Amino acid sequence: MATLGLIEYKDASAEVRAIYDDIMTTRKTDWINNFWKALANDPATLKRTWNDIKQIMAPGALDALTKEMIYVAVSVTSQCGYCIASHTASAKNKGMTDAMFRELMAVVGMANETNRLAAGYQIEVDEQFKT
Amino acid sequence: MATLGLIEYKDASAEVRAIYDDIMTTRKTDWINNFWKALANDPATLKRTWNDIKQIMAPGALDALTKEMIYVAVSVTSQCGYCIASHTASAKNKGMTDAMFRELMAVVGMANETNRLAAGYQIEVDEQFKT
Amino acid sequence: MATLGLIEYKDASAEVRAIYDDIMTTRKTDWINNFWKALANDPATLKRTWNDIKQIMAPGALDALTKEMIYVAVSVTSQCGYCIASHTASAKNKGMTDAMFRELMAVVGMANETNRLAAGYQIEVDEQFKT
Amino acid sequence: MATLGLIEYKDASAEVRAIYDDIMTTRKTDWINNFWKALANDPATLKRTWNDIKQIMAPGALDALTKEMIYVAVSVTSQCGYCIASHTASAKNKGMTDAMFRELMAVVGMANETNRLAAGYQIEVDEQFKT
Amino acid sequence: MATLGLIEYKDASAEVRAIYDDIMTTRKTDWINNFWKALANDPATLKRTWNDIKQIMAPGALDALTKEMIYVAVSVTSQCGYCIASHTASAKNKGMTDAMFRELMAVVGMANETNRLAAGYQIEVDEQFKT
Amino acid sequence: MATLGLIEYKDASAEVRAIYDDIMTTRKTDWINNFWKALANDPATLKRTWNDIKQIMAPGALDALTKEMIYVAVSVTSQCGYCIASHTASAKNKGMTDAMFRELMAVVGMANETNRLAAGYQIEVDEQFKT
Repeated sequence: MATLGLIEYKDASAEVRAIYDDIMTTRKTDWINNFWKALANDPATLKRTWNDIKQIMAPGALDALTKEMIYVAVSVTSQCGYCIASHTASAKNKGMTDAMFRELMAVVGMANETNRLAAGYQIEVDEQFKT
Repeated sequence: MATLGLIEYKDASAEVRAIYDDIMTTRKTDWINNFWKALANDPATLKRTWNDIKQIMAPGALDALTKEMIYVAVSVTSQCGYCIASHTASAKNKGMTDAMFRELMAVVGMANETNRLAAGYQIEVDEQFKT
Repeated sequence: MATLGLIEYKDASAEVRAIYDDIMTTRKTDWINNFWKALANDPATLKRTWNDIKQIMAPGALDALTKEMIYVAVSVTSQCGYCIASHTASAKNKGMTDAMFRELMAVVGMANETNRLAAGYQIEVDEQFKT
Repeated sequence: MATLGLIEYKDASAEVRAIYDDIMTTRKTDWINNFWKALANDPATLKRTWNDIKQIMAPGALDALTKEMIYVAVSVTSQCGYCIASHTASAKNKGMTDAMFRELMAVVGMANETNRLAAGYQIEVDEQFKT
Repeated sequence: MATLGLIEYKDASAEVRAIYDDIMTTRKTDWINNFWKALANDPATLKRTWNDIKQIMAPGALDALTKEMIYVAVSVTSQCGYCIASHTASAKNKGMTDAMFRELMAVVGMANETNRLAAGYQIEVDEQFKT
Repeated sequence: MATLGLIEYKDASAEVRAIYDDIMTTRKTDWINNFWKALANDPATLKRTWNDIKQIMAPGALDALTKEMIYVAVSVTSQCGYCIASHTASAKNKGMTDAMFRELMAVVGMANETNRLAAGYQIEVDEQFKT
């Protein structure tokens, strides 16, 4: 069970409800996932985290789907079960096809492999990469 | 210094040279970075790793630049100095602008933060994410 | 199921029971958690690990609660589910309030974020930090 | 060299200077460390990160020094060289003695060890920890 | 549930069946574990990963059991639940005794501890180790 | 520079010298590497860590070289530069050939790759692995 429990909409303060409303409006959904219900135990963290994510994940130089797939890549590397489940679902909602998922996984696996080969062989950074 | 040293083109076997040539042709460059020169001490690993990367990083459902940025995201999460330097350079070569890099970093940082919030609050995966 | 199973008090050797007794006495509890029951399959590791923890977690320049919260911070960063559950419970037993837990999580999340920003931007250590 | 370079105070925009000023005022120092000079290439990230850190690291249910030591614990677990150097220096500035540092390191090391023992022995979470 | 589901032998394409057959023949078993059934959603990744593992895990300068225990050591350090379960089972099949498992865990735990002590104390690499 | 500096033999207390002597005798060398000189700032940690390592790394069900290679595998996975350098040197001293090192690296890289594929595809543990 979540350490401090989950706060449902009906039990939430006005401050928390306002953020829940903004999440649902921004994401065009009618429900709140557990991540936010758990953070709602700390309204300051809920607000800060949501505002940060809203700013960071908005389309910019990178589109929303690319950002979501990067989020999945990090979550897989960190072995965060909840995050893998939630951000894979988000990426699908934003248009990630099965073919894209398969290539995403292949890159993430490969990168984790060569991250260790580079460290294990104690390879110096090339001068060309230092500029 | 690299554990087993670096193998320069002029000192390489025909087998290794063939891979070096393929790397330079595929990447349209005229030099080989240290990663491959270190792996060349193990021709089987050099060959396997290059063939895997060549297959995985080729444009498909995801374009080459998106794949390279995912590679950077993993390398940053894993704290691999060599890989951050080399794949950031590769991403720039493939068209990553400074604006794209800044957004990439913002997403990677944010994902690493929420990966720990989700774990630390011991949040159960929502039923909606399990399908 | 635990790889080598769990060893209950009634099935334990005298050597293992002595450590179980010391754990319960030191922690002022009347039960042994699964971590120790699993390690009991390797009495040398059980003994060494318990003696190390007993020494390290005793109040010193840092009080016992601060040490327990640091333990939680590491466990969350490492994504160890068992350790997050057990050390969060321990920290609560030692006086961690919900407010303290919320701030602990906020710091852990933030640190994991900036750990990647610092690596990703390839930032050199300031001379002022090298003394 | 930092990927996008470092932005010195004299070269900074008014927006960035205002944050630099706030950092120096808040921390009672007369210089800016490289982390912020690197982030200044992305004013939105600079501003968001500084505001988050300022909020999170302020004394609350946990004092400022405890928070800084937790930051060090995470940075060490993540193997972030820059962060270890900078936050160890910060912790010293906030009053961390050598004795406190030694105990901090002992706890961080121990936690990383048992994080793997718990995972490796595949230990189930005790019912008592699930409430 | 696995993101893209699991592909059973009876539902597999001829290409996938050929790999399943090779896995069972090479490993002298009559069933396929979920890892391969999940990867079968991406035949290119299934084929590449199996061929790589078959090459890498074959006895050479290191025997098959030693390789399998190294695989467990990495999986435990990475906190990959599936991999710990599957490679611990594989190691047992290849002859790992309980005594070997206990020593393996002790080394993995210890290494993770000193990995952080070395980083946290910011220890420079000795000249003697640089050759 | 090491956070608390390095303590040379000539400047060490009798207690620390006794441990330095035991390290050199046990390892049949005439010098002490920086890891121990840094830990010597905390004699309790120096003593505990050395005694633990001495016990754990002694030949048992696993030989000393196998243990040292497992140590390298963990250090590479954790991205600990100091530990990679020192334990690779130790493994060579204990008889690791270049061929063994190459295979060790191949396994470590592969395991890190599949650790992420298993997590990313959200693969359930097979019933057969749960006994």
